[in-house]
Amino acid sequence: MWRASVLTIFPEMFPGPLGASLAGKALANSIWSLEANDIRAHATDKHRSVDDTPAGGGPGMVMRADVLARAIDAVADDRPRLLMSPRGRPLTQARVAELAAGPGAIFLCGRFEGIDERLIAARNLEEISVGDYVLNGGEVAAMVLLEACVRLLPGVMGKAESGAEESFSAGLLEYPQYTRPQVFEGQGIPEILTSGDHAKIAAFRRSEAERLTRERRPDLWAAFETQKPPTKAKTKG
Amino acid sequence: MWRASVLTIFPEMFPGPLGASLAGKALANSIWSLEANDIRAHATDKHRSVDDTPAGGGPGMVMRADVLARAIDAVADDRPRLLMSPRGRPLTQARVAELAAGPGAIFLCGRFEGIDERLIAARNLEEISVGDYVLNGGEVAAMVLLEACVRLLPGVMGKAESGAEESFSAGLLEYPQYTRPQVFEGQGIPEILTSGDHAKIAAFRRSEAERLTRERRPDLWAAFETQKPPTKAKTKG
Repeated sequence: MWRASVLTIFPEMFPGPLGASLAGKALANSIWSLEANDIRAHATDKHRSVDDTPAGGGPGMVMRADVLARAIDAVADDRPRLLMSPRGRPLTQARVAELAAGPGAIFLCGRFEGIDERLIAARNLEEISVGDYVLNGGEVAAMVLLEACVRLLPGVMGKAESGAEESFSAGLLEYPQYTRPQVFEGQGIPEILTSGDHAKIAAFRRSEAERLTRERRPDLWAAFETQKPPTKAKTKG
Repeated sequence: MWRASVLTIFPEMFPGPLGASLAGKALANSIWSLEANDIRAHATDKHRSVDDTPAGGGPGMVMRADVLARAIDAVADDRPRLLMSPRGRPLTQARVAELAAGPGAIFLCGRFEGIDERLIAARNLEEISVGDYVLNGGEVAAMVLLEACVRLLPGVMGKAESGAEESFSAGLLEYPQYTRPQVFEGQGIPEILTSGDHAKIAAFRRSEAERLTRERRPDLWAAFETQKPPTKAKTKG
């Protein structure tokens, strides 16, 4: 069983959306487990404080290294320890697949202005960013990462649901999809898709995926071009 | 009031985590409103079908343009219509700020292999991606975008919470933070932060933010360098 431990000051947010749909069914079927642990349980003062003012001044509050360390130590084992943070390495599908192939993970959700820097090295935290925008805390970011991981666990997706994964993993955006009705507000489905010619359909989809990636994501396109096997080089013996 | 309409086949997922913390308080205080509308209510057959097999074959199911169009038309007004999609433009804090400054938004959450391409043009949908990874559907992505927007609405954040935003908006990753205890597992707080010298503290933090951005995110660093005002050019009269 893939095991997720979430450290948060809002344990009531979990499982939240992860309790429904595919992730919820997999949770009910014990394909994965989720415990949401309240960081405040590891505070030592009567106000259950988890934060204090930043050294050097400035707005906001910083989460204390000692309180967070106790919260981590209470669940730590050989699982990766992830800190959801806009300063982290941008999450990729490759990292998602690695995490899904492991024993699970510990997700530390920061709040306030951030967490005490000393904790990150002291507890070997991997900082992960789900994107270049600012959230109130790491909780919905952890949900994003959890959903991405859980869908890859064996038994969660049927064959029917697994196509998107493969497409994106290839480094290209997905080709356009169409379904009934045949005509929608005067617009038909591209004729080639109803031709029954599987080779032409595959070529059309590939070309559309490449076109969309080139147009919308020159960064992904450049990476895709780089990783393609090189064309046969002419060498002189 | 900033108005969010979410179109989903899992309306029970909302407000979910957005019902707690700052976003939840703002929801209770009517700073924003959230309605989650069931796409299935706009199906016309007795099975309440919202999807069908992909034209041209392949795995999975595609959401129907006609059903989604009715779901959109039932809530459409002058608000932006957003489609949460890994094919979309990567979400930035700048786009978050624009959306937060507007009247709200309509969030269409895709599921299955995708949605019928014809709908996107027919209903002028803006495709937005929260990151380069694959989710089961747009719901948790919509939560990410909603949390990012709501925290910027007037009255949601106090002064104390607003610092992170400013730092990230400047195009740099956040500088390291420290708080009590003064010594944590043998590690002290950098001396400069307890010096009381505000100019030196500001310079230290700036230099740390620049160092982290250079080391971790050469892409952000390049963009930051480009947007900096040019140093005074020496010109000959």
